[in-house]
Amino acid sequence: MTVRWKLTLEYDGGGFVGWQRQANGLSVQQALEEAVERFCGESVAAAAAGRTDAGVHALGQVAQIDLDREVAAGTLRDALNFHLRPLPVSVLSAEPAPEGFHARFSAVQRRYRYRIVNRRAPLALDAGRAWRVTQPLDAQAMHRAAQALLGRHDFTSFRASLCQAASPVKTLDVLEVTRHGEEIAIRAEARSFLHHQVRNMVGSLKLVGEGRWAEADILRALEARDRTAAGPTAPAHGLYLVEVRY
Amino acid sequence: MTVRWKLTLEYDGGGFVGWQRQANGLSVQQALEEAVERFCGESVAAAAAGRTDAGVHALGQVAQIDLDREVAAGTLRDALNFHLRPLPVSVLSAEPAPEGFHARFSAVQRRYRYRIVNRRAPLALDAGRAWRVTQPLDAQAMHRAAQALLGRHDFTSFRASLCQAASPVKTLDVLEVTRHGEEIAIRAEARSFLHHQVRNMVGSLKLVGEGRWAEADILRALEARDRTAAGPTAPAHGLYLVEVRY
Repeated sequence: MTVRWKLTLEYDGGGFVGWQRQANGLSVQQALEEAVERFCGESVAAAAAGRTDAGVHALGQVAQIDLDREVAAGTLRDALNFHLRPLPVSVLSAEPAPEGFHARFSAVQRRYRYRIVNRRAPLALDAGRAWRVTQPLDAQAMHRAAQALLGRHDFTSFRASLCQAASPVKTLDVLEVTRHGEEIAIRAEARSFLHHQVRNMVGSLKLVGEGRWAEADILRALEARDRTAAGPTAPAHGLYLVEVRY
Repeated sequence: MTVRWKLTLEYDGGGFVGWQRQANGLSVQQALEEAVERFCGESVAAAAAGRTDAGVHALGQVAQIDLDREVAAGTLRDALNFHLRPLPVSVLSAEPAPEGFHARFSAVQRRYRYRIVNRRAPLALDAGRAWRVTQPLDAQAMHRAAQALLGRHDFTSFRASLCQAASPVKTLDVLEVTRHGEEIAIRAEARSFLHHQVRNMVGSLKLVGEGRWAEADILRALEARDRTAAGPTAPAHGLYLVEVRY
Protein backbone atom coordinates (compact mmCIF):
# COMPACT_ATOMS: atom_id res chain seq x y z
CA MET A 1 0.00 0.00 0.00
CA THR A 2 1.36 3.37 -0.96
CA VAL A 3 2.06 5.74 1.91
CA ARG A 4 2.42 9.49 1.49
CA TRP A 5 5.32 10.82 3.58
CA LYS A 6 5.66 14.35 4.88
CA LEU A 7 9.36 15.28 5.00
CA THR A 8 10.73 18.37 6.73
CA LEU A 9 13.94 19.56 5.08
CA GLU A 10 16.82 21.90 5.89
CA TYR A 11 19.15 22.98 3.10
CA ASP A 12 21.82 25.42 2.06
CA GLY A 13 20.45 26.77 -1.21
CA GLY A 14 23.84 28.00 -2.35
CA GLY A 15 24.77 24.93 -4.35
CA PHE A 16 21.39 24.30 -5.97
CA VAL A 17 19.42 25.74 -8.90
CA GLY A 18 16.46 25.94 -6.49
CA TRP A 19 13.83 23.47 -5.31
CA GLN A 20 12.45 22.56 -8.71
CA ARG A 21 14.07 20.22 -11.24
CA GLN A 22 15.78 22.06 -14.07
CA ALA A 23 18.01 21.10 -16.96
CA ASN A 24 20.79 23.50 -16.02
CA GLY A 25 21.92 22.09 -12.68
CA LEU A 26 21.15 20.17 -9.54
CA SER A 27 17.91 21.01 -7.73
CA VAL A 28 16.90 20.02 -4.22
CA GLN A 29 13.98 18.08 -5.75
CA GLN A 30 16.33 16.00 -7.91
CA ALA A 31 18.71 15.41 -4.98
CA LEU A 32 15.82 14.14 -2.85
CA GLU A 33 14.30 11.99 -5.60
CA GLU A 34 17.66 10.39 -6.33
CA ALA A 35 18.23 9.66 -2.64
CA VAL A 36 14.83 7.92 -2.54
CA GLU A 37 15.75 5.85 -5.58
CA ARG A 38 19.10 4.83 -4.09
CA PHE A 39 17.34 3.86 -0.87
CA CYS A 40 14.54 1.68 -2.24
CA GLY A 41 14.61 1.74 -6.05
CA GLU A 42 11.34 3.67 -6.34
CA SER A 43 11.04 6.60 -8.76
CA VAL A 44 9.05 9.27 -6.98
CA ALA A 45 7.92 12.78 -7.87
CA ALA A 46 8.54 14.99 -4.85
CA ALA A 47 6.40 18.10 -4.32
CA ALA A 48 7.21 20.90 -1.87
CA ALA A 49 5.38 23.67 -0.04
CA GLY A 50 7.70 26.40 -1.32
CA ARG A 51 9.42 26.30 -4.69
CA THR A 52 12.48 28.15 -3.44
CA ASP A 53 14.73 29.87 -5.99
CA ALA A 54 18.42 29.20 -6.56
CA GLY A 55 20.38 30.33 -3.50
CA VAL A 56 17.38 30.47 -1.14
CA HIS A 57 17.87 28.42 2.03
CA ALA A 58 15.41 26.33 4.02
CA LEU A 59 15.19 25.63 7.75
CA GLY A 60 11.80 23.92 7.49
CA GLN A 61 10.78 23.22 3.89
CA VAL A 62 8.06 20.57 3.69
CA ALA A 63 8.07 18.02 0.87
CA GLN A 64 6.02 14.93 0.12
CA ILE A 65 6.85 11.61 -1.51
CA ASP A 66 4.63 8.56 -2.10
CA LEU A 67 6.34 5.26 -1.28
CA ASP A 68 5.26 1.64 -1.78
CA ARG A 69 8.06 0.29 0.40
CA GLU A 70 7.06 -0.21 4.04
CA VAL A 71 9.49 1.53 6.34
CA ALA A 72 9.59 3.03 9.84
CA ALA A 73 9.70 6.83 10.00
CA GLY A 74 13.09 7.04 11.71
CA THR A 75 14.59 4.55 9.27
CA LEU A 76 13.34 6.54 6.29
CA ARG A 77 14.78 9.79 7.71
CA ASP A 78 18.17 8.21 8.42
CA ALA A 79 18.33 6.36 5.09
CA LEU A 80 17.52 9.48 3.07
CA ASN A 81 20.14 11.44 5.00
CA PHE A 82 22.67 8.71 4.30
CA HIS A 83 21.91 8.78 0.57
CA LEU A 84 21.86 12.61 0.43
CA ARG A 85 25.46 12.83 1.59
CA PRO A 86 27.54 14.91 1.00
CA LEU A 87 24.96 17.40 -0.29
CA PRO A 88 23.87 20.17 2.12
CA VAL A 89 20.32 18.82 2.41
CA SER A 90 19.08 17.25 5.62
CA VAL A 91 15.82 15.45 6.36
CA LEU A 92 14.85 16.73 9.83
CA SER A 93 11.83 14.48 10.13
CA ALA A 94 9.74 12.00 8.16
CA GLU A 95 6.15 11.26 9.11
CA PRO A 96 3.22 9.54 7.43
CA ALA A 97 1.02 12.34 6.06
CA PRO A 98 -2.58 12.66 7.21
CA GLU A 99 -5.41 11.65 4.84
CA GLY A 100 -5.75 14.09 1.94
CA PHE A 101 -2.48 15.89 2.71
CA HIS A 102 -0.64 17.75 -0.03
CA ALA A 103 2.64 19.50 0.83
CA ARG A 104 1.87 22.45 -1.44
CA PHE A 105 -1.91 22.74 -1.53
CA SER A 106 -2.68 21.91 2.12
CA ALA A 107 -0.30 24.54 3.50
CA VAL A 108 -2.14 27.28 5.39
CA GLN A 109 0.87 29.41 6.30
CA ARG A 110 4.41 29.91 5.04
CA ARG A 111 7.00 31.67 7.19
CA TYR A 112 10.08 33.26 5.63
CA ARG A 113 12.98 35.15 7.18
CA TYR A 114 15.27 37.53 5.35
CA ARG A 115 18.67 38.31 6.92
CA ILE A 116 20.52 41.57 6.32
CA VAL A 117 23.89 42.25 7.94
CA ASN A 118 24.23 46.02 8.06
CA ARG A 119 27.94 46.78 8.21
CA ARG A 120 30.93 47.88 6.23
CA ALA A 121 33.16 44.82 6.67
CA PRO A 122 32.69 41.77 4.43
CA LEU A 123 31.02 38.68 5.89
CA ALA A 124 33.53 35.97 6.81
CA LEU A 125 31.15 33.57 8.55
CA ASP A 126 27.84 34.60 6.94
CA ALA A 127 29.02 34.86 3.34
CA GLY A 128 26.20 33.41 1.20
CA ARG A 129 23.93 33.33 4.26
CA ALA A 130 22.88 36.99 4.54
CA TRP A 131 22.76 40.17 2.46
CA ARG A 132 25.48 42.63 3.49
CA VAL A 133 24.22 46.21 3.18
CA THR A 134 26.95 48.77 3.88
CA GLN A 135 24.78 51.93 4.05
CA PRO A 136 23.34 52.42 7.56
CA LEU A 137 19.69 51.29 7.59
CA ASP A 138 16.90 52.63 9.80
CA ALA A 139 15.18 49.38 10.75
CA GLN A 140 12.38 51.15 12.63
CA ALA A 141 11.46 53.16 9.52
CA MET A 142 11.55 49.94 7.49
CA HIS A 143 9.21 48.28 9.98
CA ARG A 144 6.75 51.18 9.98
CA ALA A 145 6.73 51.31 6.18
CA ALA A 146 6.23 47.55 5.95
CA GLN A 147 2.92 47.72 7.81
CA ALA A 148 1.29 49.32 4.72
CA LEU A 149 1.65 45.98 2.95
CA LEU A 150 -0.29 43.93 5.52
CA GLY A 151 -3.65 42.52 4.53
CA ARG A 152 -5.21 41.55 1.21
CA HIS A 153 -3.77 43.41 -1.79
CA ASP A 154 -2.93 43.15 -5.45
CA PHE A 155 0.87 42.61 -5.14
CA THR A 156 1.66 43.08 -8.86
CA SER A 157 4.36 45.63 -7.99
CA PHE A 158 6.23 43.00 -5.95
CA ARG A 159 5.71 40.08 -8.35
CA ALA A 160 8.38 38.61 -10.64
CA SER A 161 7.56 38.86 -14.34
CA LEU A 162 7.93 35.07 -14.52
CA CYS A 163 5.37 34.48 -11.76
CA GLN A 164 2.82 31.84 -12.77
CA ALA A 165 0.21 32.48 -10.08
CA ALA A 166 -3.33 32.85 -11.42
CA SER A 167 -3.95 36.00 -9.39
CA PRO A 168 -1.68 38.74 -8.01
CA VAL A 169 -3.95 39.09 -4.98
CA LYS A 170 -2.47 37.74 -1.76
CA THR A 171 -3.03 38.28 1.96
CA LEU A 172 0.09 39.23 3.92
CA ASP A 173 -0.22 38.42 7.64
CA VAL A 174 3.15 39.51 9.06
CA LEU A 175 5.96 41.72 7.79
CA GLU A 176 8.16 42.56 10.75
CA VAL A 177 11.56 44.25 10.68
CA THR A 178 13.76 43.98 13.77
CA ARG A 179 17.38 44.88 14.44
CA HIS A 180 19.72 43.03 16.79
CA GLY A 181 23.10 44.79 16.66
CA GLU A 182 24.30 44.81 13.09
CA GLU A 183 21.78 42.19 12.00
CA ILE A 184 18.36 43.10 10.59
CA ALA A 185 15.78 40.31 10.34
CA ILE A 186 12.64 40.60 8.23
CA ARG A 187 9.90 38.11 9.05
CA ALA A 188 7.20 37.52 6.42
CA GLU A 189 4.16 35.27 6.89
CA ALA A 190 1.27 34.52 4.57
CA ARG A 191 -0.80 31.61 3.32
CA SER A 192 1.15 31.93 0.07
CA PHE A 193 3.44 34.34 -1.73
CA LEU A 194 3.94 35.39 -5.35
CA HIS A 195 7.23 34.56 -7.05
CA HIS A 196 10.00 36.83 -5.64
CA GLN A 197 7.43 38.62 -3.44
CA VAL A 198 9.50 38.53 -0.25
CA ARG A 199 12.73 39.52 -2.00
CA ASN A 200 10.96 42.35 -3.84
CA MET A 201 9.38 43.67 -0.64
CA VAL A 202 12.81 43.54 1.06
CA GLY A 203 14.40 45.37 -1.86
CA SER A 204 11.90 48.22 -1.48
CA LEU A 205 12.17 48.31 2.32
CA LYS A 206 15.94 48.68 1.99
CA LEU A 207 15.32 51.92 0.04
CA VAL A 208 13.26 53.16 2.99
CA GLY A 209 15.99 52.09 5.41
CA GLU A 210 18.58 54.09 3.48
CA GLY A 211 16.32 57.13 3.46
CA ARG A 212 16.12 57.11 -0.34
CA TRP A 213 12.41 56.35 -0.07
CA ALA A 214 9.93 57.91 2.35
CA GLU A 215 7.86 55.43 4.35
CA ALA A 216 4.80 56.35 2.28
CA ASP A 217 6.58 55.34 -0.94
CA ILE A 218 5.91 51.71 -0.07
CA LEU A 219 2.16 52.31 -0.28
CA ARG A 220 2.65 54.30 -3.49
CA ALA A 221 4.57 51.38 -5.00
CA LEU A 222 1.87 48.90 -3.94
CA GLU A 223 -0.92 51.00 -5.42
CA ALA A 224 0.90 51.45 -8.72
CA ARG A 225 0.39 47.73 -9.51
CA ASP A 226 3.49 47.97 -11.65
CA ARG A 227 6.74 46.04 -11.01
CA THR A 228 8.83 49.02 -12.14
CA ALA A 229 7.30 51.18 -9.40
CA ALA A 230 8.91 49.07 -6.64
CA GLY A 231 12.56 48.59 -5.64
CA PRO A 232 15.04 46.02 -6.93
CA THR A 233 14.92 42.35 -5.95
CA ALA A 234 16.98 41.57 -2.84
CA PRO A 235 19.54 38.77 -3.35
CA ALA A 236 18.44 35.17 -2.90
CA HIS A 237 21.10 34.20 -0.37
CA GLY A 238 19.55 36.26 2.45
CA LEU A 239 16.23 34.38 2.29
CA TYR A 240 15.19 31.39 4.42
CA LEU A 241 12.00 29.33 4.26
CA VAL A 242 11.58 28.87 8.01
CA GLU A 243 8.37 26.91 8.51
CA VAL A 244 5.22 25.70 6.79
CA ARG A 245 2.01 25.23 8.73
CA TYR A 246 -0.87 22.92 7.83
CA MET B 1 56.44 57.20 13.13
CA THR B 2 55.38 53.64 13.70
CA VAL B 3 51.78 53.21 14.81
CA ARG B 4 50.49 50.09 16.54
CA TRP B 5 47.06 49.13 15.18
CA LYS B 6 44.44 47.11 17.01
CA LEU B 7 42.48 45.03 14.50
CA THR B 8 39.26 43.17 15.32
CA LEU B 9 38.83 40.12 13.10
CA GLU B 10 36.08 37.72 12.13
CA TYR B 11 36.99 34.46 10.43
CA ASP B 12 35.78 31.04 9.42
CA GLY B 13 38.49 28.79 10.84
CA GLY B 14 37.56 25.91 8.56
CA GLY B 15 40.06 26.67 5.83
CA PHE B 16 43.00 27.59 8.05
CA VAL B 17 45.64 25.70 10.05
CA GLY B 18 44.79 28.06 12.92
CA TRP B 19 45.86 31.57 13.91
CA GLN B 20 49.58 30.90 14.05
CA ARG B 21 51.94 30.58 11.09
CA GLN B 22 52.82 26.98 10.30
CA ALA B 23 54.68 25.21 7.53
CA ASN B 24 51.79 22.85 6.72
CA GLY B 25 49.20 25.29 5.43
CA LEU B 26 47.68 28.74 5.45
CA SER B 27 47.18 30.39 8.85
CA VAL B 28 45.10 33.48 9.62
CA GLN B 29 48.31 35.21 10.74
CA GLN B 30 49.95 34.60 7.37
CA ALA B 31 46.82 35.71 5.49
CA LEU B 32 46.75 38.96 7.46
CA GLU B 33 50.49 39.64 7.14
CA GLU B 34 50.37 39.06 3.40
CA ALA B 35 47.39 41.41 3.05
CA VAL B 36 49.38 44.09 4.90
CA GLU B 37 52.33 43.57 2.58
CA ARG B 38 50.15 43.80 -0.54
CA PHE B 39 48.60 46.99 0.82
CA CYS B 40 51.74 48.93 1.75
CA GLY B 41 54.80 46.77 1.18
CA GLU B 42 55.60 46.49 4.89
CA SER B 43 56.55 43.13 6.41
CA VAL B 44 54.84 42.95 9.77
CA ALA B 45 54.64 40.33 12.50
CA ALA B 46 51.03 40.13 13.63
CA ALA B 47 50.21 39.01 17.17
CA ALA B 48 46.76 37.98 18.40
CA ALA B 49 44.89 37.69 21.68
CA GLY B 50 43.92 34.06 21.10
CA ARG B 51 46.04 31.58 19.18
CA THR B 52 43.01 29.71 17.85
CA ASP B 53 43.51 26.15 16.58
CA ALA B 54 42.75 24.86 13.10
CA GLY B 55 39.00 24.96 12.53
CA VAL B 56 38.22 27.33 15.40
CA HIS B 57 36.22 30.40 14.32
CA ALA B 58 36.41 34.00 15.48
CA LEU B 59 33.74 36.65 15.78
CA GLY B 60 36.01 39.11 17.58
CA GLN B 61 39.66 38.04 17.55
CA VAL B 62 41.98 40.96 18.30
CA ALA B 63 45.31 41.26 16.49
CA GLN B 64 47.98 43.92 16.36
CA ILE B 65 50.31 45.13 13.64
CA ASP B 66 52.91 47.91 13.69
CA LEU B 67 52.86 50.11 10.58
CA ASP B 68 55.15 52.93 9.42
CA ARG B 69 52.75 54.00 6.68
CA GLU B 70 50.37 56.77 7.75
CA VAL B 71 46.79 55.78 7.02
CA ALA B 72 43.27 56.58 8.24
CA ALA B 73 41.59 53.84 10.27
CA GLY B 74 38.72 53.31 7.81
CA THR B 75 41.11 53.18 4.87
CA LEU B 76 43.27 50.55 6.58
CA ARG B 77 40.23 48.40 7.40
CA ASP B 78 38.88 48.59 3.84
CA ALA B 79 42.29 48.05 2.22
CA LEU B 80 43.05 44.97 4.32
CA ASN B 81 39.61 43.56 3.52
CA PHE B 82 40.25 44.18 -0.18
CA HIS B 83 43.58 42.35 -0.03
CA LEU B 84 42.21 39.49 2.12
CA ARG B 85 39.71 38.53 -0.57
CA PRO B 86 38.52 35.86 -1.22
CA LEU B 87 39.64 34.37 2.09
CA PRO B 88 36.99 34.09 4.85
CA VAL B 89 38.73 36.66 7.08
CA SER B 90 37.22 40.08 7.66
CA VAL B 91 38.66 43.09 9.48
CA LEU B 92 35.70 44.45 11.45
CA SER B 93 37.57 47.47 12.74
CA ALA B 94 41.03 49.02 12.81
CA GLU B 95 41.98 51.52 15.49
CA PRO B 96 45.24 53.02 16.73
CA ALA B 97 46.17 51.08 19.88
CA PRO B 98 46.54 52.91 23.19
CA GLU B 99 50.02 53.46 24.63
CA GLY B 100 51.60 50.21 25.84
CA PHE B 101 48.93 48.02 24.26
CA HIS B 102 49.68 44.42 23.38
CA ALA B 103 46.97 42.31 21.75
CA ARG B 104 47.96 39.22 23.69
CA PHE B 105 49.45 40.44 26.97
CA SER B 106 47.10 43.37 27.64
CA ALA B 107 43.94 41.26 27.33
CA VAL B 108 42.06 41.02 30.63
CA GLN B 109 39.22 38.75 29.46
CA ARG B 110 38.64 36.31 26.65
CA ARG B 111 35.11 35.17 25.79
CA TYR B 112 34.51 31.93 23.92
CA ARG B 113 31.29 30.25 22.79
CA TYR B 114 30.92 26.58 21.94
CA ARG B 115 27.95 25.54 19.80
CA ILE B 116 26.38 22.07 19.98
CA VAL B 117 23.40 21.12 17.82
CA ASN B 118 21.68 18.29 19.62
CA ARG B 119 19.75 16.34 17.01
CA ARG B 120 19.73 13.24 14.90
CA ALA B 121 19.67 14.84 11.43
CA PRO B 122 22.91 16.03 9.82
CA LEU B 123 23.62 19.77 9.68
CA ALA B 124 22.93 21.26 6.27
CA LEU B 125 23.41 24.93 7.13
CA ASP B 126 25.67 24.59 10.20
CA ALA B 127 28.05 21.97 8.88
CA GLY B 128 31.52 22.98 10.08
CA ARG B 129 29.97 25.61 12.35
CA ALA B 130 28.71 23.51 15.26
CA TRP B 131 29.19 20.07 16.84
CA ARG B 132 26.28 17.77 16.09
CA VAL B 133 25.61 15.47 19.04
CA THR B 134 22.92 12.89 18.32
CA GLN B 135 22.39 11.54 21.86
CA PRO B 136 19.88 13.68 23.81
CA LEU B 137 21.79 15.97 26.20
CA ASP B 138 20.57 17.31 29.53
CA ALA B 139 21.80 20.91 29.28
CA GLN B 140 20.68 21.76 32.82
CA ALA B 141 22.79 18.95 34.26
CA MET B 142 25.72 20.14 32.13
CA HIS B 143 25.29 23.66 33.48
CA ARG B 144 25.14 22.52 37.12
CA ALA B 145 28.21 20.32 36.67
CA ALA B 146 30.09 23.17 34.98
CA GLN B 147 29.86 25.37 38.06
CA ALA B 148 32.41 23.14 39.84
CA LEU B 149 35.06 24.47 37.45
CA LEU B 150 34.55 28.15 38.29
CA GLY B 151 37.30 29.96 40.13
CA ARG B 152 41.04 29.45 40.43
CA HIS B 153 42.19 25.87 39.85
CA ASP B 154 44.95 23.71 38.48
CA PHE B 155 43.36 22.77 35.12
CA THR B 156 45.92 20.08 34.20
CA SER B 157 43.08 17.61 33.51
CA PHE B 158 41.69 19.91 30.80
CA ARG B 159 45.04 20.93 29.30
CA ALA B 160 46.43 19.69 25.97
CA SER B 161 49.70 17.79 26.28
CA LEU B 162 51.23 20.31 23.85
CA CYS B 163 50.24 23.28 26.01
CA GLN B 164 53.15 25.67 26.51
CA ALA B 165 51.73 27.73 29.38
CA ALA B 166 54.13 28.13 32.30
CA SER B 167 51.46 27.16 34.83
CA PRO B 168 48.30 25.04 34.67
CA VAL B 169 46.60 27.35 37.18
CA LYS B 170 43.88 29.54 35.65
CA THR B 171 40.85 31.40 36.94
CA LEU B 172 37.59 30.57 35.16
CA ASP B 173 34.98 33.34 35.50
CA VAL B 174 32.01 32.00 33.54
CA LEU B 175 31.01 28.55 32.27
CA GLU B 176 27.35 28.70 31.34
CA VAL B 177 25.37 26.07 29.45
CA THR B 178 22.04 27.10 27.91
CA ARG B 179 19.65 25.37 25.54
CA HIS B 180 17.51 27.08 22.89
CA GLY B 181 15.54 24.40 21.07
CA GLU B 182 17.99 21.92 19.59
CA GLU B 183 20.96 24.25 20.09
CA ILE B 184 23.15 24.17 23.21
CA ALA B 185 25.51 27.11 23.74
CA ILE B 186 28.40 26.97 26.20
CA ARG B 187 29.84 30.33 27.20
CA ALA B 188 33.32 30.39 28.72
CA GLU B 189 35.07 33.49 30.05
CA ALA B 190 38.47 33.91 31.69
CA ARG B 191 41.48 36.16 31.62
CA SER B 192 43.23 33.38 29.72
CA PHE B 193 42.83 29.69 28.95
CA LEU B 194 45.17 26.74 28.57
CA HIS B 195 45.55 25.11 25.17
CA HIS B 196 42.37 23.11 24.36
CA GLN B 197 40.91 24.02 27.76
CA VAL B 198 37.47 25.05 26.46
CA ARG B 199 37.20 22.08 24.10
CA ASN B 200 38.30 19.68 26.86
CA MET B 201 35.79 21.11 29.33
CA VAL B 202 33.05 20.79 26.67
CA GLY B 203 34.06 17.20 25.95
CA SER B 204 33.62 16.32 29.63
CA LEU B 205 30.36 18.25 30.01
CA LYS B 206 28.96 16.29 27.07
CA LEU B 207 29.51 13.08 29.08
CA VAL B 208 27.43 14.63 31.88
CA GLY B 209 24.75 15.66 29.37
CA GLU B 210 24.49 12.10 28.08
CA GLY B 211 24.20 10.74 31.61
CA ARG B 212 27.42 8.74 31.24
CA TRP B 213 29.01 10.92 33.90
CA ALA B 214 27.41 12.10 37.13
CA GLU B 215 27.61 15.84 37.74
CA ALA B 216 30.19 15.25 40.49
CA ASP B 217 32.50 13.49 38.02
CA ILE B 218 33.51 16.91 36.67
CA LEU B 219 34.98 17.83 40.06
CA ARG B 220 36.60 14.39 40.33
CA ALA B 221 38.24 14.95 36.91
CA LEU B 222 39.46 18.43 37.92
CA GLU B 223 40.94 17.17 41.17
CA ALA B 224 42.75 14.29 39.46
CA ARG B 225 45.10 16.80 37.72
CA ASP B 226 45.52 14.21 35.00
CA ARG B 227 44.42 14.70 31.38
CA THR B 228 43.32 11.07 31.12
CA ALA B 229 40.81 11.60 33.95
CA ALA B 230 38.74 14.01 31.85
CA GLY B 231 36.64 13.48 28.72
CA PRO B 232 37.71 13.65 25.09
CA THR B 233 38.43 16.95 23.31
CA ALA B 234 35.35 18.41 21.61
CA PRO B 235 35.84 19.16 17.90
CA ALA B 236 37.36 22.50 16.88
CA HIS B 237 34.58 23.53 14.50
CA GLY B 238 32.07 24.21 17.31
CA LEU B 239 34.31 26.81 18.99
CA TYR B 240 34.16 30.60 18.49
CA LEU B 241 36.42 33.28 19.96
CA VAL B 242 33.69 35.86 20.57
CA GLU B 243 35.36 38.85 22.20
CA VAL B 244 38.54 40.02 23.89
CA ARG B 245 38.44 42.72 26.54
CA TYR B 246 41.28 45.05 27.53
